[in-house]
This record gives sequence, C-alpha cells and structure tokens, in this order.
Amino acid sequence: MSRPDGEPLVGIVVVSHSAKAAEGAVDIARQQAPEVTIVPAGGDVDGGLGEDPNAIAEAIQRADSGAGVVVVMDLNGAVTAAKVALTMVDPDLAGRTRLSDGPLVEGAFVAAIQASIGDPLDEVLQAARDAAHLEKAVD
Amino acid sequence: MSRPDGEPLVGIVVVSHSAKAAEGAVDIARQQAPEVTIVPAGGDVDGGLGEDPNAIAEAIQRADSGAGVVVVMDLNGAVTAAKVALTMVDPDLAGRTRLSDGPLVEGAFVAAIQASIGDPLDEVLQAARDAAHLEKAVD
Repeated sequence: MSRPDGEPLVGIVVVSHSAKAAEGAVDIARQQAPEVTIVPAGGDVDGGLGEDPNAIAEAIQRADSGAGVVVVMDLNGAVTAAKVALTMVDPDLAGRTRLSDGPLVEGAFVAAIQASIGDPLDEVLQAARDAAHLEKAVD
Repeated sequence: MSRPDGEPLVGIVVVSHSAKAAEGAVDIARQQAPEVTIVPAGGDVDGGLGEDPNAIAEAIQRADSGAGVVVVMDLNGAVTAAKVALTMVDPDLAGRTRLSDGPLVEGAFVAAIQASIGDPLDEVLQAARDAAHLEKAVD
C-alpha cells in the first residue's frame, strides 16, 4: 500500500511456529495500521506447528509494495525458514527485506505503526527490534 | 500439574489482545512443556480484539497448582486487565501470581520450559522477562 503522497509503505510479514499466533499478531497490528500490508505466514504446510518457507516467500511477495518488507519471527525455526524463503524470492526483493530479531507480537505491532506513518525500511526494522524493550507497566 | 516428586509446577497464563494470538502462543509453549498448565486468556468477552478480566482471573485460577502463576501479556491493555483480574482472585493466589514485562510468545515459550523443570516462581518470572533478549540468529 502507499501513503497519501503515493510513496509506497513498508510491508510486514509475521512468521510463527503457529498459524494462530501469526494470524492473531496480524489482527492486532492491522487494528493499529489498517493501511499497511501485513501478512501472516505461520505453521507448517499442513497447518500444524512448524514453518513453511514457500508460504513465507509468498507472504514476502504479497507484503512488498516497493518500499521493502520487515519480517518478524518468534523462534529460531522461524528464522531459519525465513532465510530459506529469502533464497526463493527475486533477489531485488530479498535485498529490500529485513529480518527482525525483536519479539513477534510486539514487533509486528510497533513496526506496523511506524510503517503506517511512512517510515523507511531500516527505521521500521529498528522499531521492530526495539519492541523487545516495549514498556509494560507491570509494577 | 506436578513434578515426579509431587512438588507442584508453576503455571503460565497468556493474555493477549487477540484470542488467536493467545491460543497460538499456548500451543507453541505446550509443545515444549506438555506437563505444565498453560492457559490462554485472549480477546474480549465477545471474542473480538480486547481483554476480559473475568477470563484472565479464571485462567489464573486454572493455571495454579500451588506453586504460583506467571502471566505473560502483549500490550498495555492486557497488563491493565491482568491487574484488574488480580483483584478478583483469592488474595493468596494473587500473592503467588507474577506479571511479566517480557514478550508474549517468546516469554510463554521460555517460561514454560523453566516451569517444566520445576523452577520456582520467581525464576520462571525471570525467564519470561529475559525472553526479551532471546537470541534470534537473523544475521
């Protein structure tokens, strides 16, 4: 998707070991940033717990509007699968895709907000990473 | 639930703005630690995005086996609702319930593993908090 001035927005892909977790994280992020393309890629090919590099590659393609894609992931299985997916997409697209080492749900949420205001790729990535320190007022 | 020696295990509650995200996080954590009681409490009373303090209070009661409960949450709405829930449960149970400021999915995963080996309440809490720094090998 794009900003009112026509510049494309960064897209977000949510890769989880669980399809439900990925879809839930996308629902939360979309509520905050409906104008951003946020795509879930959770679970294995049969819908069970696991990862599917093909589905992740398709999600990256769908999420890109030309401004690049930030991928948030939960566990290292998701990271490994996302790296495989990057070998399956066009090299130009892979070159404008960033993998976040921040948390899944919180990272998707914060990254979507930053993407919605038109922040560039590496700033959206930084927001997703910094979500590890999202303040939760538990005390 | 309890350890082979009969000592109870710490329970986990997963509170999310999204029912799907909470259920997915529980699925992931249970796969690693099936012997731990891990209870989702996501979404509002109608199943939409939001929080339900009553459901969170019930989840805390279900998760406790006497060793206490660690609650992981995604956003500050979940934190607020969990605090309300703590006023609704028995004061003894509230006294052995801890709110984590760590990430939702990663925190539930790590906390469940630590609970499964019989770690005490405050160590499981610390694991849930430290999940903010869970290494994801993105480079």
